[in-house]
Amino acid sequence: MFQFLSRLYRNYALVVDRAPGRMENPGYSSGFDGLHHPSDDDDDEMVDIAGATLDFSTTDDVPPLSSGGYDEYSAGSSSSSRAAGMNGSGPTKLVDPLDDPLPGVGTYEDFNTIDWVREKSKDRDRHREITNKSRESTVALLHSVSDAFSGWLLMLLVGLMAGALAGGIDIAAHWMTDLKEGVCLIGFWFNHEHCCWTSNETTFQERDRCPQWKSWAELIAGTAQGPFAYIVNYLMYIFWALLFSFLAVTLVRAFAPYACGSGIPEIKTILSGFIIRGYLGKWTLIIKTITLVLAVSSGLSLGKEGPLVHVACCCANILCHLFTKYRKNEAKRREVLSAAAAVGVSVAFGAPIGGVLFSLEEVSYYFPLKTLWRSFFAALVAAFTLRSINPFGNSRLVLFYVEFHAPWHLVELAPFILLGIFGGLWGALFIKANIAWCRTRKTTRLGHYPVIEVLLVTAVTALIAFPNSYTRMSGAELISELFNDCSLLDSSQLCGYKQPVNTSETGVDNSLADRPAGAGLCTALWQLALALIFKMLITVITFGMKVPSGLFIPSMAVGAIAGRLLGVGMEQLAYYNHDWLIFRGWCSPGADCITPGLYAMVGAAACLGGVTRMTVSLVVIMFELTGGLEYIVPLMAATMTSKWVADAFGREGIYEAHIRLNGYPFLEPKEEFEHSSLAVDVMRPRRGDPALAVLTQDGMTVGEVETLVESTHYSGFPVVVSQESQRLVGFVLRRDLLISIDNARKRQDGIVSASLVVFTEHCPAQPPEAPPPLRLRGIMDLSPFTVTDHTPMDITVDIFRKLGLRQCLVTHNGRLLGIITKKDILKHMAQIANRDPDSILFN
Amino acid sequence: MFQFLSRLYRNYALVVDRAPGRMENPGYSSGFDGLHHPSDDDDDEMVDIAGATLDFSTTDDVPPLSSGGYDEYSAGSSSSSRAAGMNGSGPTKLVDPLDDPLPGVGTYEDFNTIDWVREKSKDRDRHREITNKSRESTVALLHSVSDAFSGWLLMLLVGLMAGALAGGIDIAAHWMTDLKEGVCLIGFWFNHEHCCWTSNETTFQERDRCPQWKSWAELIAGTAQGPFAYIVNYLMYIFWALLFSFLAVTLVRAFAPYACGSGIPEIKTILSGFIIRGYLGKWTLIIKTITLVLAVSSGLSLGKEGPLVHVACCCANILCHLFTKYRKNEAKRREVLSAAAAVGVSVAFGAPIGGVLFSLEEVSYYFPLKTLWRSFFAALVAAFTLRSINPFGNSRLVLFYVEFHAPWHLVELAPFILLGIFGGLWGALFIKANIAWCRTRKTTRLGHYPVIEVLLVTAVTALIAFPNSYTRMSGAELISELFNDCSLLDSSQLCGYKQPVNTSETGVDNSLADRPAGAGLCTALWQLALALIFKMLITVITFGMKVPSGLFIPSMAVGAIAGRLLGVGMEQLAYYNHDWLIFRGWCSPGADCITPGLYAMVGAAACLGGVTRMTVSLVVIMFELTGGLEYIVPLMAATMTSKWVADAFGREGIYEAHIRLNGYPFLEPKEEFEHSSLAVDVMRPRRGDPALAVLTQDGMTVGEVETLVESTHYSGFPVVVSQESQRLVGFVLRRDLLISIDNARKRQDGIVSASLVVFTEHCPAQPPEAPPPLRLRGIMDLSPFTVTDHTPMDITVDIFRKLGLRQCLVTHNGRLLGIITKKDILKHMAQIANRDPDSILFN
Repeated sequence: MFQFLSRLYRNYALVVDRAPGRMENPGYSSGFDGLHHPSDDDDDEMVDIAGATLDFSTTDDVPPLSSGGYDEYSAGSSSSSRAAGMNGSGPTKLVDPLDDPLPGVGTYEDFNTIDWVREKSKDRDRHREITNKSRESTVALLHSVSDAFSGWLLMLLVGLMAGALAGGIDIAAHWMTDLKEGVCLIGFWFNHEHCCWTSNETTFQERDRCPQWKSWAELIAGTAQGPFAYIVNYLMYIFWALLFSFLAVTLVRAFAPYACGSGIPEIKTILSGFIIRGYLGKWTLIIKTITLVLAVSSGLSLGKEGPLVHVACCCANILCHLFTKYRKNEAKRREVLSAAAAVGVSVAFGAPIGGVLFSLEEVSYYFPLKTLWRSFFAALVAAFTLRSINPFGNSRLVLFYVEFHAPWHLVELAPFILLGIFGGLWGALFIKANIAWCRTRKTTRLGHYPVIEVLLVTAVTALIAFPNSYTRMSGAELISELFNDCSLLDSSQLCGYKQPVNTSETGVDNSLADRPAGAGLCTALWQLALALIFKMLITVITFGMKVPSGLFIPSMAVGAIAGRLLGVGMEQLAYYNHDWLIFRGWCSPGADCITPGLYAMVGAAACLGGVTRMTVSLVVIMFELTGGLEYIVPLMAATMTSKWVADAFGREGIYEAHIRLNGYPFLEPKEEFEHSSLAVDVMRPRRGDPALAVLTQDGMTVGEVETLVESTHYSGFPVVVSQESQRLVGFVLRRDLLISIDNARKRQDGIVSASLVVFTEHCPAQPPEAPPPLRLRGIMDLSPFTVTDHTPMDITVDIFRKLGLRQCLVTHNGRLLGIITKKDILKHMAQIANRDPDSILFN
Repeated sequence: MFQFLSRLYRNYALVVDRAPGRMENPGYSSGFDGLHHPSDDDDDEMVDIAGATLDFSTTDDVPPLSSGGYDEYSAGSSSSSRAAGMNGSGPTKLVDPLDDPLPGVGTYEDFNTIDWVREKSKDRDRHREITNKSRESTVALLHSVSDAFSGWLLMLLVGLMAGALAGGIDIAAHWMTDLKEGVCLIGFWFNHEHCCWTSNETTFQERDRCPQWKSWAELIAGTAQGPFAYIVNYLMYIFWALLFSFLAVTLVRAFAPYACGSGIPEIKTILSGFIIRGYLGKWTLIIKTITLVLAVSSGLSLGKEGPLVHVACCCANILCHLFTKYRKNEAKRREVLSAAAAVGVSVAFGAPIGGVLFSLEEVSYYFPLKTLWRSFFAALVAAFTLRSINPFGNSRLVLFYVEFHAPWHLVELAPFILLGIFGGLWGALFIKANIAWCRTRKTTRLGHYPVIEVLLVTAVTALIAFPNSYTRMSGAELISELFNDCSLLDSSQLCGYKQPVNTSETGVDNSLADRPAGAGLCTALWQLALALIFKMLITVITFGMKVPSGLFIPSMAVGAIAGRLLGVGMEQLAYYNHDWLIFRGWCSPGADCITPGLYAMVGAAACLGGVTRMTVSLVVIMFELTGGLEYIVPLMAATMTSKWVADAFGREGIYEAHIRLNGYPFLEPKEEFEHSSLAVDVMRPRRGDPALAVLTQDGMTVGEVETLVESTHYSGFPVVVSQESQRLVGFVLRRDLLISIDNARKRQDGIVSASLVVFTEHCPAQPPEAPPPLRLRGIMDLSPFTVTDHTPMDITVDIFRKLGLRQCLVTHNGRLLGIITKKDILKHMAQIANRDPDSILFN
């Protein structure tokens, strides 16, 4: 315990000590000039986590080139470069990667993009090796079998862990939300509902009231009635909200800056191949889990669904360390993370199929069928773990279980589409407003005071939310109430219809039928309208603060309120105008024809669709939530309309917008590249620039190579036959080159600045007095990707996306002409869209 | 009508006239030496359809080189080759594809593979053009909008058409199946159920009996009882079965040979980029629809689910002709076909989400998110169209709606996994046996008598099936009955439990609980066991006959029987051994603890999974069928076990096995390429072969080019700077080259054999007396894909799969070394797997 605290303090001190700064990204070089040496569990290194903030525009600490620090690392790339050096086994031990790979070769810098092709090739090599060995001995065969099943085992563990965590979060958030209102006398750890369950004095009519549960006013002022009690409750509500949010923001600031936000934009980027060390580490997991509970309990307009995806991905990343296969391979690990995203949604909503489709549609970049199966398995395990924990106390897997009695009618498609339009409009508007606000936060002094910002927003939220019962309750409760169909015994305000006078005449069944709105319902409608406006405004400034914050619940709440309002409106319209043509035939007096709860559900889907641009996965989630296949068509109509309307104002969903805001290198797979430029227009060097820095295969000395490398920022260098012919031989990465030369100078005899660097298979003839050559064919990628200068950019972008390339060389009639990196493409796309190309920060 | 008949006759005559033969595929050339000139609606050309049979090993009619026949075609490739000829606009009109593309250039031969990259690039060009024009005028803007929505409109039409057809098929098959047993007197067009609905004399107890419905024995012999009546019914049953199957096989033989089988292997191949003209044409649609009804009604052990996918794809392909965007682009059309596959499953099972996942998991090759959304939309439309038609008369969307009352217990996972093992074993065995049988059919004289084969199998099926009530009923009915939970009023044999003696003591509720098996149930079990053996054997020889035949229903029937047997066994075990440890606690006497219907469902999923290797989509289909999220875990456990067990015996599902049997060029996306060969090991020319046939960019005459082309079979030729340097400039397709030269010789002045063929941008200096050069830069692909000789084959295979390439050039240090085609890769893979590389027939 003491160790933990002291470590916390040390880390806190580190954060405070390190000044924020700015990264440099000149040209198409990597973000870092030097080398960073990741170890196996680098993800969890506190220094990395604490030193980085999400706000990259204000960091300028370029790590120093810490050469010579890599030899203490264990072999990190056991079969890293068969692809690179198949035929390159030289005489010296150093350059043969198959025998003794150099530690560090084949790994990546922080904030860089991985090479999918290389990673997958590495994994296939590993797999081939295991398969070949398995024929030799029984132990090796067992190893091969355990290797084949390790993926499934990992999925099982991820499902169990994420399910258990989600259950814990649900229980804790429920308790702390209730803590804002009062406390249970028979045990402070009981939440309101649980407290009254335990009590014997609870009646069915008043499930919420029991003597054991005391509101703060009862405890402090001794009375539950009157203005004084109200004020005491009000103040206590604000106090707890401020306390929770203060704790949340402080913990995030101190121990895991990456724990803020929803995490989905970053996870999307990571899944596309970017590296953010520590983003999915164990500190982020711990802090995000704790602060998520605090943030949700504080009553801020945020949800826990997005952060749960982040939490599940952290679990997966940490569990990956148990299996060599996944620990050492960035591509394989990303397959697991894709599945973990499915797990996150599965536990957030109790919707395993929806979760898998969410991962497929919204989050994942590379989603092979194998991952589909495993995701599904993990999502199921997680959902059932959560059900075993039973946090909602109702044996239901899902958050909002509803059952509607009446079918919908074709005429109702019109209001559903109207809700779709509303959702689309709100989604587009929300994205624009939220991005503008986040940009303001990034560029002005506002961003320097995250704690004050959070406290202010919490205070405003609490102040306004308390008087209105629909904003006071948590988002999930609100949605649940709005989705609910009014049953006979329902005492909620929303069901405050006038009771039919002649019950005996119409029969008992009809008490569920359409009725005129009573006073209770009218009050409820006013409160809902106010809540709608409040939620719409406050969510814009809440999302993006330095606390964990999901967007699903607030968006759905906005939509559900709008939907319920429209639903009640339609219901009353139908009640008073049974004889209208559109109602005739299906909505006769006394029939239960319009279900306002269904409208709320459709509205929620529409708004969530407008914000995130999900379609199929959203419909599946909603239909798993409600358990009714019957309502697919209304949901589909609303979400498609919402997507079309929102797309008309801007193609980006909220996650893509945040990715762009942060300048991550993300090639959107959904968007087509529409411009008609050619590879030659995008590649570097541009016309007029100095020629491309290339190495020759056997014509340069160690000193010349070092000078070339140090005079440029490029993260890799093409190797050509000779400067005159410019015929391409291979590609070598800056990082690998520096590590190899440095290592050779230290370990290998006779390697001096005048030694020839040789990339060929056989050494050229040299004068006898010359120093021994440095053979580096082993670190060269012998199969670099090339396109011709005439290749249209749309094809090039397609190749980058589908193969997950980092760079591609451009040739003309077999001669090397230039290079295109992912960043070049993103800058080019930004330029076409009239955006600032320098907003793309990373490579 | 007369026109129709005469056309039918003409086509029939054509079929009879054309002798079957063998195609030649020497080296890596295309299957055809000459040119085939597709028109826009070539898919529907009867000559193509009728002339081809699925059994390619017995066709040798190589179409003659019909040069000069292409000029009557309308522009078929309006923007075909910007990618190919961006900067290649020469002085002559002929060679500028932007102004006036040559008809035929940019289209494909039958039985060839499309170039996905080129097709997608073409579509982006088209889209770019429309977008640019849309800024100019309102009409163009409207055109642009209508173009954007044409995809959705097409999906709507596909959904409506496929849904309507499926409804029609269901109704017709239902009627004709009943026709085997008897006829309705108040109208012969009523099926049994409908006939008795219409009747007033039907009681609830005996819904199946009514005086209006007469069995054949009643009509012919005047009695419904006794051995004579039985024999009459038996004979009539066989007569109708033989009549239906004879009609089916004759129609298929005469008018649409492609209409046989399930169609899914071919559709998978087509979706991967292969071209089989006429496979999705209107004749195939008409004949498949009719013969599907006949085949299903004949009582053969086959289902209509696979063929419905084929029917839906035919609908989509035909409707594509309404929209230029889809008519002219093979890649775009395949997106629509992917969605149509989802529609097929959606209408087959009433499972729209399962259909989309089936298309994604099992059928599709290229499935972008856009297609996901559209598939979902189309699947929904189709499902609701089908529901409006209401062919099952129960307002349910799904084929087998079940509702179970009891939850499952964790202990039951053991029998479920046992069912999974059974399903996997049966699946593996079935595939091996079926492929062996189909191979026998292909290689022996058996294949020459398809009509006799079908009649024989039908006769055997009918003879054996009639005495056993479980084989006499249709597959769907059987599954429905097996899935059904025994309710209080159920009179079926399967619910023939002994009534509890002391009803008053145990209460009414318990009549649903476990009971000892009565005599009825014992008989049923015996019949089911016999039915199981019969179904297992007959399905092996039925699947692959020359009638439309799906595999879903027979596989599910086998699994459902096995599951029900195990379920009843478990139930009885639990009844007689309540005190066993495994039953204690959850299966007390009188409790309804084991549901045999659930076992049947799990068994059906396991067997279908074993045969097709579907997992997620299968679980989703089953769960949509039954409408219960609760049973996902049992289903998942069984299907995953089934897949693992079956995979241990062979990685291929039935569809992949049939693809390989037919030698289609299909690169399985699920299978990893495990061997460690390099591109240089696979490319042609091999070591020792003559050098690669190349064109030089400005050093060859028309005569030389023609000689080179005619002396080889290659489907394309690389263009190099010069024979000495071998530096790659581009790639030109044989078809395009021949068309262009031929056209130039006819239309362009001064083009003679001595004319220089020029692929450069600027003509080289020539002596003044020389004939004008032929400029062909326009037809050259300036951005051919290249890999280096050291590229590992796993990466190369990945590139081929992900980009959908036809061929890829191999370079070494910038010099052209060789070429790899899809066929080379498939042959190489066959060689590695110790299979005959010549089994790969097409390019």
